[in-house]
Amino acid sequence: MKPFMNADFLLPDDCSRRLFHDYAAAMPIIDYHCHLPPVDIASNAGFKNLAHAWLGGDHYKWRAMRSNGVLEADITGHEPDYATFLAWARTVPRLVGNPLYHWTHLELQRYFGIQEALTEKTAPAIWETCNAQLSSAEFGARSLLMRMKVRAVGTTDDPADSLEHHIAYAAVRQPGETVMVPSYRPDRALAVDDLSVWQSYLQRLGAAADVVIDSYPALIRALDARHQTFHDLGARASDHGLTAPFASFAPEATVQSIFARMLQGQAPTPEESNIFKTAVLLEVGRMNARRGWAMQLHLAAVRNLNGAMFGKLGPDTGYDAVNDEQIASKLAAFMDALQRDGLLPKTILYSLNPNDLEVLGTVMGCFQDGSSPGKVQMGSAWWFNDHIEGMRRQMVSLGNLGLLSRFVGMLTDSRSFLSFPRHEYFRRILCGLVGGWMEAGEIPPDFDTFGAMVQDISFNNAKNYFAIPGVND
Amino acid sequence: MKPFMNADFLLPDDCSRRLFHDYAAAMPIIDYHCHLPPVDIASNAGFKNLAHAWLGGDHYKWRAMRSNGVLEADITGHEPDYATFLAWARTVPRLVGNPLYHWTHLELQRYFGIQEALTEKTAPAIWETCNAQLSSAEFGARSLLMRMKVRAVGTTDDPADSLEHHIAYAAVRQPGETVMVPSYRPDRALAVDDLSVWQSYLQRLGAAADVVIDSYPALIRALDARHQTFHDLGARASDHGLTAPFASFAPEATVQSIFARMLQGQAPTPEESNIFKTAVLLEVGRMNARRGWAMQLHLAAVRNLNGAMFGKLGPDTGYDAVNDEQIASKLAAFMDALQRDGLLPKTILYSLNPNDLEVLGTVMGCFQDGSSPGKVQMGSAWWFNDHIEGMRRQMVSLGNLGLLSRFVGMLTDSRSFLSFPRHEYFRRILCGLVGGWMEAGEIPPDFDTFGAMVQDISFNNAKNYFAIPGVND
Amino acid sequence: MKPFMNADFLLPDDCSRRLFHDYAAAMPIIDYHCHLPPVDIASNAGFKNLAHAWLGGDHYKWRAMRSNGVLEADITGHEPDYATFLAWARTVPRLVGNPLYHWTHLELQRYFGIQEALTEKTAPAIWETCNAQLSSAEFGARSLLMRMKVRAVGTTDDPADSLEHHIAYAAVRQPGETVMVPSYRPDRALAVDDLSVWQSYLQRLGAAADVVIDSYPALIRALDARHQTFHDLGARASDHGLTAPFASFAPEATVQSIFARMLQGQAPTPEESNIFKTAVLLEVGRMNARRGWAMQLHLAAVRNLNGAMFGKLGPDTGYDAVNDEQIASKLAAFMDALQRDGLLPKTILYSLNPNDLEVLGTVMGCFQDGSSPGKVQMGSAWWFNDHIEGMRRQMVSLGNLGLLSRFVGMLTDSRSFLSFPRHEYFRRILCGLVGGWMEAGEIPPDFDTFGAMVQDISFNNAKNYFAIPGVND
Repeated sequence: MKPFMNADFLLPDDCSRRLFHDYAAAMPIIDYHCHLPPVDIASNAGFKNLAHAWLGGDHYKWRAMRSNGVLEADITGHEPDYATFLAWARTVPRLVGNPLYHWTHLELQRYFGIQEALTEKTAPAIWETCNAQLSSAEFGARSLLMRMKVRAVGTTDDPADSLEHHIAYAAVRQPGETVMVPSYRPDRALAVDDLSVWQSYLQRLGAAADVVIDSYPALIRALDARHQTFHDLGARASDHGLTAPFASFAPEATVQSIFARMLQGQAPTPEESNIFKTAVLLEVGRMNARRGWAMQLHLAAVRNLNGAMFGKLGPDTGYDAVNDEQIASKLAAFMDALQRDGLLPKTILYSLNPNDLEVLGTVMGCFQDGSSPGKVQMGSAWWFNDHIEGMRRQMVSLGNLGLLSRFVGMLTDSRSFLSFPRHEYFRRILCGLVGGWMEAGEIPPDFDTFGAMVQDISFNNAKNYFAIPGVND
Repeated sequence: MKPFMNADFLLPDDCSRRLFHDYAAAMPIIDYHCHLPPVDIASNAGFKNLAHAWLGGDHYKWRAMRSNGVLEADITGHEPDYATFLAWARTVPRLVGNPLYHWTHLELQRYFGIQEALTEKTAPAIWETCNAQLSSAEFGARSLLMRMKVRAVGTTDDPADSLEHHIAYAAVRQPGETVMVPSYRPDRALAVDDLSVWQSYLQRLGAAADVVIDSYPALIRALDARHQTFHDLGARASDHGLTAPFASFAPEATVQSIFARMLQGQAPTPEESNIFKTAVLLEVGRMNARRGWAMQLHLAAVRNLNGAMFGKLGPDTGYDAVNDEQIASKLAAFMDALQRDGLLPKTILYSLNPNDLEVLGTVMGCFQDGSSPGKVQMGSAWWFNDHIEGMRRQMVSLGNLGLLSRFVGMLTDSRSFLSFPRHEYFRRILCGLVGGWMEAGEIPPDFDTFGAMVQDISFNNAKNYFAIPGVND
Repeated sequence: MKPFMNADFLLPDDCSRRLFHDYAAAMPIIDYHCHLPPVDIASNAGFKNLAHAWLGGDHYKWRAMRSNGVLEADITGHEPDYATFLAWARTVPRLVGNPLYHWTHLELQRYFGIQEALTEKTAPAIWETCNAQLSSAEFGARSLLMRMKVRAVGTTDDPADSLEHHIAYAAVRQPGETVMVPSYRPDRALAVDDLSVWQSYLQRLGAAADVVIDSYPALIRALDARHQTFHDLGARASDHGLTAPFASFAPEATVQSIFARMLQGQAPTPEESNIFKTAVLLEVGRMNARRGWAMQLHLAAVRNLNGAMFGKLGPDTGYDAVNDEQIASKLAAFMDALQRDGLLPKTILYSLNPNDLEVLGTVMGCFQDGSSPGKVQMGSAWWFNDHIEGMRRQMVSLGNLGLLSRFVGMLTDSRSFLSFPRHEYFRRILCGLVGGWMEAGEIPPDFDTFGAMVQDISFNNAKNYFAIPGVND
């Protein structure tokens, strides 16, 4: 029996251990897609206590507590405090088989030096120990990033955002300190299901871009102006959350007419809505291609399924799920429409439904054009798939259908400054996979080649792929 | 090489073995969803011979024999006899890789004390040995249940059923003997594809409930009256077989009008049919919520695909398959409609399509409300998925997306009194999984915690979840 | 650490090794579905150099090179030469995790006796060594087949083809030499998306069959005449590439009328198109049943997704992907329509989407009629699934849902005479799976039974199932 989560955690054999300890472990991190609040980095925010740090906004943990029979009043009903932490501590031993179990203990180990498992019994001492540390400067947002060798983070930002915190941080960032760049997520520009919300959004977007958005071309001009501003601040990726892909093509005049009617408050038909969304997303794709960015498509998430709780808590509170719509033909048609004009950007395809991996992995292969290695990427195991089996499945699928060696690797997708050990978790799983192949004689015993490969997937590929300005090794 | 199916079958390491032998093995069984004929328990029926016991109604075995080139005449063409048994014995060695192979040998080992493998060669002696034992009192239906420590069985019953055998058995059941309760399966009330069959069914249902079903409200009153009767006889679960979920909402007046037209023999449109089914199923959901029952949704089975054989043999004869319709949005909308009124009952989600596990596991999480641990459950690997890989996949998926520790665990879903070693099979796989994690250092070496966990999943969770009256430890 | 791809490659334990080395390894091959050019066998063609042999038409390798950042000019831009080979050699170490990595080294080992891994560094020597061998008689097409004990190949042929190379080869084939038979692939007769192409095709088909195709019955007569000709040349299988199954039934008069209109150049509606396709495919199914053939349905491939590259390079150049349409109900309805008349032929179901395995494996079971063992087959892991995990998944799924022991096993589906070590790859994986079960005590230590089983799956089952004339052991 191996000790619990020791140095060789998830590394079952000599080859895996050597690949991890001698090659992957020391590599820095580029967290190219996350949801860290830019203000916290700009202000170097700290945490009030461990309950705030862990349970203030983490809907993964909220879901687990609800599943364990904790009442909502004790989860989001009040400011996170010791009672909240204790409810969490009671839940943790119930979480065996869930990635939260490992994440929790990796965070205790790597940030706080605590080796024991969190249970109701160990909770009081862990609360004290962690809170004592949290008050130190080591636990400011920037220190946490530097301690984990995070060379860059790509936050998630609306084109209408002022990016003031990015600007502020760029002005004070010390040489060698973590680079923070925005990512461009124009989902609200496509959200025509509620026209009044959409119309106010266009106002905000227009103000940010200094464009009066009174027509479809004006919308595209505004989006492009913000795209340029994002670019100037170091952004190298857009990001798009799509329940399913869309590929409804129409002449620009049709799109303009649909836009004009929506602007007057006339609800679009489903097909009109798809035509509009397709047109805008193609335009963003072209902007990405022209400025050398990567386009991230996040497919197959359905959100806010519990109407009552959405009414009480709003979005991003733990009421989302995996969708199962067909994606192959529409995704391919969308990409082909960009490719036809030579304006398919670097693209990363994520699906929340792991059954889509084979579609993604093969559609992807149809649009590799040799212009750069791994131009179209299968995104890392996302959200509900971000666990041992999900990551293995993604890497095995990518390997079989494309080139694992060209994979840009892990991202946290997280709102928490304590999530960075997930990169280590990923690397252990990667090294376990590749090391297992070596151990079994499926690949040669060539540590130079395969050590470099795990280093590439850990860091170098993302560095070269995104080419975020100011990132050094 | 390990011996064939010995005491450590499916237990590859020390931790797995200890979890199984010291914790899980001795736990009793609650078989909360099966198809045992109530009359057989009430009458303590026995078996004529091993061919009757194994091949009288087991369409899993029939399918396997057909696949192996056995002609129908030798399968269902006559009363099960030695020739039928011999055709089966010849098929068994061909079944390697199929759960029937293990089930067959577990049944020979546990019920008959036979260790050798069934083949054409060993068939004559096994036939003699088993038949000799089958004539003893040990092989009466009730003895078979008690020998396997079955504390309760939930049979599958139509609301129109008299439940006479449940009543009769309850009157004679000895203290400590297996509890038998009905489960409420109103599928026929929804089966409006053939209106004449449906109309006669309403007659039967009305008679059973003492309600004249001349309107939609009367139908609901009749269903509710039977729900109460089932409750009084200990039922704590409903059960629903759905090709795909439905979620077509309409005002009650519309439903009443659709019902009235169907009652007059006017076939509904597909949308009307869905509106009617949605309305009835929501009502049953509310009944379940009010009486504290669990609602079992069995999704994605398509039935009777071979028209010629359906004409000859009727349903449940081995001509069903896995469906692949989309389920996410409709399932979520259906559950949300109940949740909105605070009347979502405890719910167990099964799909015959294992690719649905990620949808089930995440939709599930959107409706956990903390009112009880594991309120919404991912059902155990069902039917065509009830094998080693299917059970592992279900448990790993549940663990990653929810709480494995709160899982209500195994059920046989079987028509046979000899199927109970499948609970042991499940427990071995469970202990292999959890023990493997411990062996690898992925969880602490804490047998108290994880021994209790496998005991919970084996028995305690189901006991607490269903709270069937009269079930003791 | 095991040596790289040595004799025990993919055989992790004693049982696996014994099953492979003592039973499976020596069995001959029936490659019942491939795309070898008949002319190359008839003419005993050779290779100009290793670049031609490997990169002349292999779109698997082209895709991999594009993914690795090789420009199209260096892939298909000129005749394959040393530069092409070198670009490939640079790509190979990047392919770890992809079946091309193992295929490449198996081919170097088995055909050329080269044990070392292909890299940029080893490329020059390997180029020289291989080219020297390629000029010898050992590397003529027929020798390559005989060296791999290929007893029969089933090529893929259009009903309009003259089959001249099959006729020519049959006339010169020596006793004991590889049998070559055509397979009947009438996809073009169904391709009514482009009516002018379809109309010219009907001309060609009519000419080949000596039938004037001026009506739907005439089309069927022509197809049947060619089916008979194929039969006389040893064909025992048809083959059909379907994006998704179709099952739109209509009276023959309707089909005739749709046909008549299409013949006059009037484009069919989607439903008319499906009616026509369903009708023709049912007729081919009946021909297959009457002549004792197997019908191969290849589902869920979408093709030519990259419009620009299709314009430049045409089909089969690496721009195809996995489809994700629903298949269960239509596939079952199609098979049931044949079964109703007692004219369902032996059928092999392939899907490019591995998520369909559970649907295939259960629909299959609904149409086993005992007339022959394994009458309906789950096809071997196809194309993008032809890798270690894909093959394991297919075999485990087939085992759980049907009878692995009756599996007709591997086919190359390849255009290359160097692809036959894929049968060895398959057998190693099969023996690893079955041997692993034996090692773990999940099956008895009975090498006679399970050795015979792996031999059956390697060769005997296909021999008996297809009963290709002239194939000996």
